[in-house]
Amino acid sequence: MASMAALFTKTPYPPQSLNKIANTHFAPTREVSLSLPFGRKTHRRLRVSSALIKPDGGKLVELLVEEPHRDLKKSEALSLPRIMLSKIDLQWVHVLSEGWASPLRGFMRESEFLQTLHFNALRLEDGSVVNMSVPIVLAIDDSQKHRIGESTQVALFDSENNPVAILKDIEIYKHPKEERIARTWGTNAPGLPYADEAITNAGNWLIGGELEVIAPIKYHDGLDRFRLSPVELREEFTRRNADAVFAFQLRNPVHNGHALLMTDTRRRLLEMGYKNPILLLHPLGGYTKADDVPLSWRMKQHEKVLEDGVLDPETTVVSIFPSPMHYAGPTEVQWHAKARINAGANFYIVGRDPAGMGHPVEKRDLYDADHGKKVLSMAPGLERLNILPFKVAAYDRTQGKMAFFDPSRPQDFLFISGTKMRMLAKNKENPPDGFMCPGGWKVLVDYYDSLVPESNGKVAEAVPA
Amino acid sequence: MASMAALFTKTPYPPQSLNKIANTHFAPTREVSLSLPFGRKTHRRLRVSSALIKPDGGKLVELLVEEPHRDLKKSEALSLPRIMLSKIDLQWVHVLSEGWASPLRGFMRESEFLQTLHFNALRLEDGSVVNMSVPIVLAIDDSQKHRIGESTQVALFDSENNPVAILKDIEIYKHPKEERIARTWGTNAPGLPYADEAITNAGNWLIGGELEVIAPIKYHDGLDRFRLSPVELREEFTRRNADAVFAFQLRNPVHNGHALLMTDTRRRLLEMGYKNPILLLHPLGGYTKADDVPLSWRMKQHEKVLEDGVLDPETTVVSIFPSPMHYAGPTEVQWHAKARINAGANFYIVGRDPAGMGHPVEKRDLYDADHGKKVLSMAPGLERLNILPFKVAAYDRTQGKMAFFDPSRPQDFLFISGTKMRMLAKNKENPPDGFMCPGGWKVLVDYYDSLVPESNGKVAEAVPA
Repeated sequence: MASMAALFTKTPYPPQSLNKIANTHFAPTREVSLSLPFGRKTHRRLRVSSALIKPDGGKLVELLVEEPHRDLKKSEALSLPRIMLSKIDLQWVHVLSEGWASPLRGFMRESEFLQTLHFNALRLEDGSVVNMSVPIVLAIDDSQKHRIGESTQVALFDSENNPVAILKDIEIYKHPKEERIARTWGTNAPGLPYADEAITNAGNWLIGGELEVIAPIKYHDGLDRFRLSPVELREEFTRRNADAVFAFQLRNPVHNGHALLMTDTRRRLLEMGYKNPILLLHPLGGYTKADDVPLSWRMKQHEKVLEDGVLDPETTVVSIFPSPMHYAGPTEVQWHAKARINAGANFYIVGRDPAGMGHPVEKRDLYDADHGKKVLSMAPGLERLNILPFKVAAYDRTQGKMAFFDPSRPQDFLFISGTKMRMLAKNKENPPDGFMCPGGWKVLVDYYDSLVPESNGKVAEAVPA
Repeated sequence: MASMAALFTKTPYPPQSLNKIANTHFAPTREVSLSLPFGRKTHRRLRVSSALIKPDGGKLVELLVEEPHRDLKKSEALSLPRIMLSKIDLQWVHVLSEGWASPLRGFMRESEFLQTLHFNALRLEDGSVVNMSVPIVLAIDDSQKHRIGESTQVALFDSENNPVAILKDIEIYKHPKEERIARTWGTNAPGLPYADEAITNAGNWLIGGELEVIAPIKYHDGLDRFRLSPVELREEFTRRNADAVFAFQLRNPVHNGHALLMTDTRRRLLEMGYKNPILLLHPLGGYTKADDVPLSWRMKQHEKVLEDGVLDPETTVVSIFPSPMHYAGPTEVQWHAKARINAGANFYIVGRDPAGMGHPVEKRDLYDADHGKKVLSMAPGLERLNILPFKVAAYDRTQGKMAFFDPSRPQDFLFISGTKMRMLAKNKENPPDGFMCPGGWKVLVDYYDSLVPESNGKVAEAVPA
């Protein structure tokens, strides 16, 4: 069976701190001959199993310019009106370029934006419906709009002034910020992290169009090897002869409750008759709010969890999902699920309060903890995806490990909240044995240790719930 | 051809001030033998033309208890936990009881509420999708919830303590007010009329279930005769041999621009090959905000417009739509259209900024004026409905009448805004000849005249735009 290691050893970036995951936890049983996906022309030749779920719209969108034409596109870009991309904009270019948002072919036009806000779905020309719950839009301000003038194309540049993409056949329309926020988050309360970061101070216009991305988006942070595109993931699942792929989205450290759930899901899928269900352990790698545990630390923690054998490397693919995080609860969980269809997953695990957070102003959670899974199970365009709701796991004192909560003996169970977990890690205390593998826990403690305390002696809060 | 008059002359309520409409403006060409729809058993026998558009869900829902069982239901209601209905609640019972919201069979359960908020549509058991954009929900407070206890049914009472309906197989769930408002209106700005009136101070719980309505809802305001149910409207269209029904929703006085649009629509439908397109002129009769022109005055104004022959009584049915008004723009216009499908309309006229209003806090319109028709044209579940977008009508000085705006000679056109119109009517001045028929204008002037000036000498503003 092929493995992630086979992929990693051929990446253009040398193995760094996470190499161990590649070599030990996604241990290859044999090396396979494999052209790397980073030269897009190559992997088109690879067979993608017809057994995998079809991408939205029937065909995976890829918006990368082919190698021989890149120089030409680059010089074309230099002659066009320029838009400077923020970090989050660039992450969306990444998302779009690899087809996570298939069948979208670029930043949303107004008709797509309105359908997203009102219906969380897009109707295609053939009358079929795909899910699309968060706006993938590019904001520009009045002066940028003025500079674009009558041009039908613009060039997108990164913060280092490198041309990243061309946006063709553009459409400029009003950016109704208040309405966008209200319809996406279900609140206009101040303090929504994504809104503060990317909407409130963004331009008053949105620009849609078709993207031509000049080269694959890279971050040069030692983690690019883990950023497999939907095509690459589909190839990997095919190589492993997956007959079911179940995705687990996360933005937090993995504890043994999560692990229990993932292994139990595999068990259930085997019981259902699948021969080789593969887990896609898929941490979100784009923008997260300041008090979340950063991606690099999370990846270290996931490495330890795999090292400790909590999850089986043979049946697990770890990869980074490049999307920014909205913290938009029931609206966003649909995006998280839909993008994984495009990567080949036909089962999606959903827990309590997915993509949720505390209300930014009131003392309560922003979303009802059950709405996420309810909305997901009813969402248009996700009918083909099997939603697997969480059972509640808690620490079973009688067994000394995380276990599914048994309502007949509640006194035996200990619920360790995110707040409690953070507090323990900050204070370098240990959670009960069996809550998290010791290696993984140490990473968390090290992370909090690495933070420079604020003047009040407190460190920023992470939210590992 | 049958006429509305035939219906009206048999109503249990004596003709009052609006009798003239019935007798002169819906002039019968011949009297037809017709059992009145108010005894629900009777009209079931009437054939409903298969040519009319099918109701959502395939079958028009009717939730009225049949005559022989009403006394029994009434005494059953007296034995159940009681919920007192507000005026708006009662209007929703009315809406639900007659099937405007088909296939809804009562106040929404949580799954319906969530689908409405997130998708503006409900998926039915057979996998088909119907539009549903505004929550039709019943709020209760903590003490009411406590009183209901373990009961599976409750009785709904009106403000005079008469039992109105039984709600069966109930489901009580949280009322997420902030989220409901944000997702319905696209803003949490304070001052949204419906939210202030019916949500912000309502209870923290919603109660869904199946309705059994004890008797038809009546208001005894002299206008009940105009409140035709979807079944009655379908019967009327069938009697008139309509092969197309085009609905015009309004909550404001009719000016000649509106009339031009309606007559032009009929002309276009005839050109398309329809032989007998019927106009449903359908003023909204439920809750409206304080500064709107009240229903009774609007009906008087519509009467004058018909008297002046601006619209043809032979091809026009005037009836009252019992729904309360949300002022939720692109979200609400879907409800307005969907309800008219259930009443038999297969064409829907949509104008600039439908169901819109000024932003309650900022100096701008709450919605982009074009979003309503765009959203409507893309809305799930409305694919069967033909959307007819407005052309812009304005006062053409060269012709001395309202005409479609001709962009080649803008200098000839005068746009008379709602504000301008109100100002003129308040000051008892006349608009340019041909803007509105003199009789209709006089009603408006009389209305403002009838208002007791506030202490500051100003009268409340109406919004007839």
